[in-house]
Amino acid sequence: MTSIPPVEVPSRIAVLGTGLIGTSIALAAARAGIEVAGWDADPRIAAAAASTGALQQAPDLKAAAREAELIVVCTPIAAVGEVVARALEAAPDSVVTDAASIKGAVLAAVESRVPAVALRRFVPGHPMGGSERTGPEHASASVVDSIVWVVAPGAATDPASVARVEAFVEAIGARPVRLSPQRHDRLVAFVSHLPQVAATTLMGLATAEEADEPEMLLLAAGGFRDLTRLAASNPALWSEILLANGTELARAVDLFVDRLQGLRDLVAGADAAAVEHRFTVAKEARLRLAAKPQVRSGVAVIQVEIPDEPGALARITAVLGEGEVNIEDIQIVHSPEGGRGTVHLTVAAPTATASMAVLRAGGYDPARVA
Amino acid sequence: MTSIPPVEVPSRIAVLGTGLIGTSIALAAARAGIEVAGWDADPRIAAAAASTGALQQAPDLKAAAREAELIVVCTPIAAVGEVVARALEAAPDSVVTDAASIKGAVLAAVESRVPAVALRRFVPGHPMGGSERTGPEHASASVVDSIVWVVAPGAATDPASVARVEAFVEAIGARPVRLSPQRHDRLVAFVSHLPQVAATTLMGLATAEEADEPEMLLLAAGGFRDLTRLAASNPALWSEILLANGTELARAVDLFVDRLQGLRDLVAGADAAAVEHRFTVAKEARLRLAAKPQVRSGVAVIQVEIPDEPGALARITAVLGEGEVNIEDIQIVHSPEGGRGTVHLTVAAPTATASMAVLRAGGYDPARVA
Repeated sequence: MTSIPPVEVPSRIAVLGTGLIGTSIALAAARAGIEVAGWDADPRIAAAAASTGALQQAPDLKAAAREAELIVVCTPIAAVGEVVARALEAAPDSVVTDAASIKGAVLAAVESRVPAVALRRFVPGHPMGGSERTGPEHASASVVDSIVWVVAPGAATDPASVARVEAFVEAIGARPVRLSPQRHDRLVAFVSHLPQVAATTLMGLATAEEADEPEMLLLAAGGFRDLTRLAASNPALWSEILLANGTELARAVDLFVDRLQGLRDLVAGADAAAVEHRFTVAKEARLRLAAKPQVRSGVAVIQVEIPDEPGALARITAVLGEGEVNIEDIQIVHSPEGGRGTVHLTVAAPTATASMAVLRAGGYDPARVA
Repeated sequence: MTSIPPVEVPSRIAVLGTGLIGTSIALAAARAGIEVAGWDADPRIAAAAASTGALQQAPDLKAAAREAELIVVCTPIAAVGEVVARALEAAPDSVVTDAASIKGAVLAAVESRVPAVALRRFVPGHPMGGSERTGPEHASASVVDSIVWVVAPGAATDPASVARVEAFVEAIGARPVRLSPQRHDRLVAFVSHLPQVAATTLMGLATAEEADEPEMLLLAAGGFRDLTRLAASNPALWSEILLANGTELARAVDLFVDRLQGLRDLVAGADAAAVEHRFTVAKEARLRLAAKPQVRSGVAVIQVEIPDEPGALARITAVLGEGEVNIEDIQIVHSPEGGRGTVHLTVAAPTATASMAVLRAGGYDPARVA
């Protein structure tokens, strides 16, 4: 009688590249009782990471990798192929994974550098969490709490290597989701890269038109601001990401353009019913999305009207705080053309009913909208 | 010696169409000591508006218009031309303005119905405020406080009529901005209608792709949600708006598509410097936009880190409430891929320094980011 050996959570890992995401992973691992060795190309960054208590700074990459059962490479995309290859060579019994936002290009970079037998130990990964801040001093275990962590094995990856990564991901509190590298890249082209491209393009267009129409941005209200918020993202980082996913991005852009032109033609043809149908389909999908868990957790959205006066937000958040409700997100909701006084509260889904009761006891009239 | 007669604020107005925007205008007018007569095609809506104390319900359109120096037509777009024409006829000494989101089509609808001499008294207008709610019961004078109110005279409009509308707009607390009907429609095509079309199209595309890729929306984080929030807007209303502005919308869509395809080609050609340049231009424009006043007022944005724990938001809003800071908007800021713990507070610009001092006294480390 044979039995499948249980997959053990690694007791010792290495993090190579100790910026915000690497150090956050180290902190979550340390919290789970896992020993962490850390290395960074810049020893000052590794020292800053070590000072958080998350990891022990190793003198060099080899020393960090040597006794690790799992090595997590968290360098910038351009360095991932090289660092993964060095890690696979330095630690011949270890599993190596990475945290880059693109998987196909990273896998190709690794394949070009290491022998086929070493590829069995490489598991491309993408923890879909982060922060608008950078550097180990802003790291937090909460950056990875409950996030979707894509595990994207290549054709040569050994199933046991995948199992080791998934056991680690679960042990530190994230949610492994398995996709092939190609599917990962295709999906992020639609839900991450295309939105970024649309935001940057809309902002670029509006500012180009502003040269002739100085009042243009005076008329830009909440809707325009929502659509262009992403345009403030890091140009160098995004240039690198888009170039690494050019084929999938081109496909997503082309499909987006087809649909934009289709809607333009329906409007030009004054086909009100068809235009309205497109809006109805999108509205229903958006309401389903609002009801879906955010990437990092299952949440509920509660709508409450508050008076438009100083202290109104303080009062509602105090009522919630006294009721021990943890607010995941709060937003004053504007119509496309402004408006005020309606608040959307996001809370963990299991606490939605209790949160509504707390609000009612505080004199509010809450409605769950997602 | 001649002197230009001072423009007098109307002492009596009529509001035709007493939904949310009409009743909000009536409330702001009443607050400014202006008498308001109200009429609605649905007498129950007019009665509900009257019960707010903002206006006196007139038995019919003519009775409402008869003694008004200014008549504000706030019906749905499709009815504006007809109601404006009836108002111009019923009150031969009055100035008539409207509140529809499109100006060229409305002006054409009026021109087709009234003699040239009456056109001198019609001033197309667009108060750029609103609420996601509808109906007089959700009206508030604050809906129009400090908003941009576009005043868009046609070629036949008399300057004295424009002056009367602008005096009224200022008297009730909004900010008149004069544009031709054509320029108004062109600008809103870029900053309001194109964002709506982009949001609806992105959401429609993602949900169509979801049929083949069920995990797609599992990977949709804050950026995708920002870009598609507008897709939950009212389909019938938007179909009407877009069809009424089809020519300008088509132009904006075509320019947007050109730029999307240009960026796609730069990515396909691996021109990292050119891609990065596009992102840099858009980023700089977005940061300038963040520093600009919102449509309805001059605001400042303050960034503060808060701990990720229950009561953290309650504490900061309590600190602000005790310091008598009025929070215009609050948002927990997420990176494109998640993250938490950073709050953006929007406050009236003149109160920014005092708000920062209140936060520092409360133990926070605020940074003004806009």
